[in-house]
Amino acid sequence: MKLNKNANTNILIVGLGLLGGSYAMALKKKGYHVEAITRSQSTIDYALEHHLIDAGSIQVDAEMIQRAELIVFALYPHVFMNWIKENQHLFKPSTVLTDVTGVKGSVVYEIQEMLREDVEFIAAHPMAGKEVYGVENSDDRIFAGANYIVVPTDKNTPEAIALCEELGRELGFRSVSCLSPEKHDEMIAYLSQLTHCIAVTLMCCHDNEHLVKYTGDSFRDLTRIAKINDAMWSELFMMNKDQLLAQMDLFMEKFQELRNDLVNDNLDDMRAMMRLSTERRKLFDK
Amino acid sequence: MKLNKNANTNILIVGLGLLGGSYAMALKKKGYHVEAITRSQSTIDYALEHHLIDAGSIQVDAEMIQRAELIVFALYPHVFMNWIKENQHLFKPSTVLTDVTGVKGSVVYEIQEMLREDVEFIAAHPMAGKEVYGVENSDDRIFAGANYIVVPTDKNTPEAIALCEELGRELGFRSVSCLSPEKHDEMIAYLSQLTHCIAVTLMCCHDNEHLVKYTGDSFRDLTRIAKINDAMWSELFMMNKDQLLAQMDLFMEKFQELRNDLVNDNLDDMRAMMRLSTERRKLFDK
Repeated sequence: MKLNKNANTNILIVGLGLLGGSYAMALKKKGYHVEAITRSQSTIDYALEHHLIDAGSIQVDAEMIQRAELIVFALYPHVFMNWIKENQHLFKPSTVLTDVTGVKGSVVYEIQEMLREDVEFIAAHPMAGKEVYGVENSDDRIFAGANYIVVPTDKNTPEAIALCEELGRELGFRSVSCLSPEKHDEMIAYLSQLTHCIAVTLMCCHDNEHLVKYTGDSFRDLTRIAKINDAMWSELFMMNKDQLLAQMDLFMEKFQELRNDLVNDNLDDMRAMMRLSTERRKLFDK
Repeated sequence: MKLNKNANTNILIVGLGLLGGSYAMALKKKGYHVEAITRSQSTIDYALEHHLIDAGSIQVDAEMIQRAELIVFALYPHVFMNWIKENQHLFKPSTVLTDVTGVKGSVVYEIQEMLREDVEFIAAHPMAGKEVYGVENSDDRIFAGANYIVVPTDKNTPEAIALCEELGRELGFRSVSCLSPEKHDEMIAYLSQLTHCIAVTLMCCHDNEHLVKYTGDSFRDLTRIAKINDAMWSELFMMNKDQLLAQMDLFMEKFQELRNDLVNDNLDDMRAMMRLSTERRKLFDK
């Protein structure tokens, strides 16, 4: 299949939180027919009222699932895996499934292993978000400057990979790329999970409610993501434990290097690290 | 003395970089008479052309110094201390001196110790900046959401402290507060220097020029300040070495706690840290 908004490609979103809602908003604006299954009726009501979806259900609605050509799962990892286990008999043959899960190695293989032969799961990770939750905060502008990573395995067909890449572009992501589940998890441990560990740690160092009067933008920047959904992130950390531990250790080793330079008045090496970081960070300027 | 724009209070800025230039811009707009001494003629030319100053000199101009009622030093710490040593005989009696230096304990006492009895130095730290340098990047809007810390010692008069606080308000800072040099340096080691160490370390962990395709906003946020002036920051680190080492160790200890929770599948404690960080970070929302 290919995405075709003129032919009314029917997209079902399962889990209408911030990300699911933002997917719905972007796809609906592009002209797709978007339906949603989610837990609470107030979420459905909000999404209908704000024209994020064409139809919604709080039940695992067999007819709705049968109508879908593409299903996007925007659920917590373990909820996603259970959902597939319990409901995969309802998929129409040839349905393509994708997701937004933040870890891949411990999810993708297990799902592809248990999945019916006549449907295909192609994993993806939209690197976009906000520090707020819920469908009410849906905002398709979060995709504009962001990266979208398609995470195929040997089991995936070129067609499904192309479809998933096309979905990333239709959503409005700035960059769409491909990584293996292993490489993805290493990158995410470094770029996302480690940074969340650092932000949380920073906020836990001092109990001083006056800090806000003394802080500059640097501390603000480094702790923006310290407002964190503890249920979701602890689950993501545990599912990527080995990779995250490796990245934490690498970080601590380099941090210790810098500390030693300071202890030993080793200005040359300290400044060399600063120049390296400056050089590398320039590549990130949007 | 008091700041009085109607009576044309004459303010001299020594060192016209990003901060000195932004001070000039803000004060000139408020109606003060602003002059500057800085190293390069092109800086003076730029500042005159863009109406940041009323007059400027690349010499240590005795007449200009005699005209000033308030002098703001926006120099590297060691340059600032040398400048005072060599040129303090030129001050008019009762001149008030202030600065923008990012460390205080190793600067303030030494300057107050060597300073003539008939002038007064009241230290201040404007917690504002950008990752760019030079008078061309001057921008008085950087003060609007930022904090200004006055750092008095026992030697300072209530009048000079009040004047310095008034300067912070006139510059447009959101919050003006007072800290002792010791408390200031501890706060700055934690809020500013530690965060710069973390950002630099993060960029030094991996040599992968494709990172930019996979990153989300969190890594961007945590490394914005990794573009760093290595000469200035290594000097600031060295001048606040003990405080910075203490904060680095505190950070590593807490980081290690989080790591241990992950190793031991201790979800309860991990989530407790996340909830604490979330709670504390909420105080920082502007």
